[in-house]
Amino acid sequence: MSRLSRAAPFFLSLVAALALADKQSPANIILFIGDGMDEHQITMARNYLYGADGSLFMEQMPLRSSARVQTLREDNPQQFRYVADSANTASTLATGQLTSIGRIATSAATDQDQSTILEAAQKAGLRTGLVSTASLTDATPAAFATHTAHRNCQSPTDMTKAIGYAAATQQCLADQHSRGGKGSIAEQLLTANIDVLLGGGKRYFAQSSKGTDLQKTAASHGYTLLSRRRELLETNPNRKLLGLFSPSHLPVEWIGTDNRRAEPIALNWLGEPHFPEPFSCVENPDHRETPTLKEMTSAALTQLSADNSKGFFLMVEGASIDKQAHRRNPCGEIGELHAFDQAVRAGRQFTKAHPNTLLIVTADHGQAGQIVPLPEYFLGWGDNQYPPGYYAVLKTRTGESMAVSYATNAPPNGQSELHTGVNVPVYLEGTDGANVPQLMDQRQINRLMLDHLGLQLSAD
Amino acid sequence: MSRLSRAAPFFLSLVAALALADKQSPANIILFIGDGMDEHQITMARNYLYGADGSLFMEQMPLRSSARVQTLREDNPQQFRYVADSANTASTLATGQLTSIGRIATSAATDQDQSTILEAAQKAGLRTGLVSTASLTDATPAAFATHTAHRNCQSPTDMTKAIGYAAATQQCLADQHSRGGKGSIAEQLLTANIDVLLGGGKRYFAQSSKGTDLQKTAASHGYTLLSRRRELLETNPNRKLLGLFSPSHLPVEWIGTDNRRAEPIALNWLGEPHFPEPFSCVENPDHRETPTLKEMTSAALTQLSADNSKGFFLMVEGASIDKQAHRRNPCGEIGELHAFDQAVRAGRQFTKAHPNTLLIVTADHGQAGQIVPLPEYFLGWGDNQYPPGYYAVLKTRTGESMAVSYATNAPPNGQSELHTGVNVPVYLEGTDGANVPQLMDQRQINRLMLDHLGLQLSAD
Repeated sequence: MSRLSRAAPFFLSLVAALALADKQSPANIILFIGDGMDEHQITMARNYLYGADGSLFMEQMPLRSSARVQTLREDNPQQFRYVADSANTASTLATGQLTSIGRIATSAATDQDQSTILEAAQKAGLRTGLVSTASLTDATPAAFATHTAHRNCQSPTDMTKAIGYAAATQQCLADQHSRGGKGSIAEQLLTANIDVLLGGGKRYFAQSSKGTDLQKTAASHGYTLLSRRRELLETNPNRKLLGLFSPSHLPVEWIGTDNRRAEPIALNWLGEPHFPEPFSCVENPDHRETPTLKEMTSAALTQLSADNSKGFFLMVEGASIDKQAHRRNPCGEIGELHAFDQAVRAGRQFTKAHPNTLLIVTADHGQAGQIVPLPEYFLGWGDNQYPPGYYAVLKTRTGESMAVSYATNAPPNGQSELHTGVNVPVYLEGTDGANVPQLMDQRQINRLMLDHLGLQLSAD
Repeated sequence: MSRLSRAAPFFLSLVAALALADKQSPANIILFIGDGMDEHQITMARNYLYGADGSLFMEQMPLRSSARVQTLREDNPQQFRYVADSANTASTLATGQLTSIGRIATSAATDQDQSTILEAAQKAGLRTGLVSTASLTDATPAAFATHTAHRNCQSPTDMTKAIGYAAATQQCLADQHSRGGKGSIAEQLLTANIDVLLGGGKRYFAQSSKGTDLQKTAASHGYTLLSRRRELLETNPNRKLLGLFSPSHLPVEWIGTDNRRAEPIALNWLGEPHFPEPFSCVENPDHRETPTLKEMTSAALTQLSADNSKGFFLMVEGASIDKQAHRRNPCGEIGELHAFDQAVRAGRQFTKAHPNTLLIVTADHGQAGQIVPLPEYFLGWGDNQYPPGYYAVLKTRTGESMAVSYATNAPPNGQSELHTGVNVPVYLEGTDGANVPQLMDQRQINRLMLDHLGLQLSAD
């Protein structure tokens, strides 16, 4: 008797259980986006946190796929670029359509609004939520509920600023109210009637009421304004929540001992490399009064699921995995990936009590960090060999040594590490996997979510 | 009615079909190892070959997992290293046990032989084969059938050479015949009674008969010796085959136009970067008389499956994906990944007629190559920013531009790019997936193969 036929009775009872669940509970989506969280960044965090035999909570989800990251050229939308940004990739996850770098749910070159799954969910009467460790006006949350030519059009004062490095077709002018546009991202978010908005970006929202009383602005749109961790933890779930816990992005959870990051290898006058000493990660004292991503996620899930017979769509972003990788800050990056994974853990716990929930964990694009050999390796080969970018040796929680390198933009001029073009992982829970090929793309992730909710986008 | 319950009748007939197949056809394993083939190298090749919407043949296999790459320290086997080499990782795939860098199926520090799945398959009467684009004495094929303290112990003359960068416990001395050892890898391979050995490395095997007549040496071990592509294509399958198609590693299939590789960014006296011009990949004229990996794989499958009621174990390595990445040669790397994928395609075709075959495609460890932004991006930001290692812009088959960077060992002294510590993909076909978690390790891949063959290792 084969393994498969032995499994059949269990399989059939699972079928029955799921068929029952289908009728009892509303369909929900929780989409977790780890910004810049490719498999290399995940391995780095896993090694640091749990060692070579460990696994993250997201890696314990039942199903894995991998997504191509696809980006059109603004100057020729018939062709692709092979490195993306968070704006165009979050737009594709939100809209199921491709676009160009910098765009927020608008089409490459032609600047047409692309309708989003959050908007479709609202129309169907589902509740919606956006949670991020970034400013809520940042590209990833923005792409699910707003439409602008460029991610920089965050607040009213941004609308008249020229964006030097962006194409003429991607300036904020076209989105100005005076030209018939929908205005800045902050303004569009406030009027989008989203049930839960939790993250950073107070300074962008304050502007939208001429800079004076954010409390009144929020109230005028029906929101209870939260600005402190304690307020979040004690909030009444039966209210529309606007939580703005920082002027811009939230402080990160971890930093390196003595604030250390990766650094260029120092060379002496003979050209011999001097490798930096190992360090560990510690809690960032600046984060103390800030809610964790897990706390924001749990609050959002409580609000969205309370007395809700119609289901919800929730997007949760771990934004600073990417932002800390840009800064060559491995402890910042690992701490944020850990925080993200804890939020995923809360999401997984929620699905146990709400089995008609599709939980997807993915990333928008790759990042620069790589795990490379230790100093002893380079010194063993001799001939003054060393990694050419920014390098750190971490003393991991398991007491071992792991070296990481960021080397996409040369010291000393390289201002920031760069995104890479690698595929990103997709972890899934709450699907039988029948419509999940092992290689997919970000449009298919959008389609999978729509199918789970039984929705279509208005452009379809 | 849920999607799952609709699928149940199909599922049950599948169960019946597989149960039938279990009884009719012998269990086979085809293990494909792309050396250094992490998801970043795969994305690079896919983009070049098929564009942003394409997929490789291996990516069309039904199931995906991801494997942790685990390496013990020779100086302290209680601790891990976070960057591996092909010797220790191929050893783990072969033996299901961990070891340290450089070791060929022997234990870290204690130098005990670790028995392999190929050896277990032989004992159970299955046929066995090793196919590689490297010398057959190279680490990956060696680890399935030989046992040495270090991968460098390839031929009799290597046995007395000191390995300067290796630990005292990993010198070849201990494997010398005169000290009761099993001798070099070439000698061990020739006497291991493997049914099919196809690859490079003629010069290592010639030595084992005191440098004179390789034809006689092979014949004395029962082998038909093949040294030309035509001989392979015309061979009678009912013979033990030793194909040695090159003195060492086989020539690669592709090179860059004008032999171009990635190169350091040139700076003028103002520090302004001058980015290299784009190039494409062309066939390597030196490869013409060499069998492709697909041809070797097909010949091996024909030999191993002819009149065979007991099944087989075959390992096929695409060795020079890694070797070309070390040399910062993107066209070499992409061409070898393409050749490997064509061999996988042949393997998948074989499984259609032999359904009790478990096909696994994976890598041993990560490599340095990354897809990074185009020159226009760096120039757009100004301030003399550029990637710090070796950089190339490829004009892809779809007429687009893709930039790749190798930056783990600084120019101009960095002799070779380095392996990285990222997880590697695992693609599977011929399993229901019940015992395939989405995150596994290389020991579990070994266990999965043993279970499929119904075998245990003698050390168990």
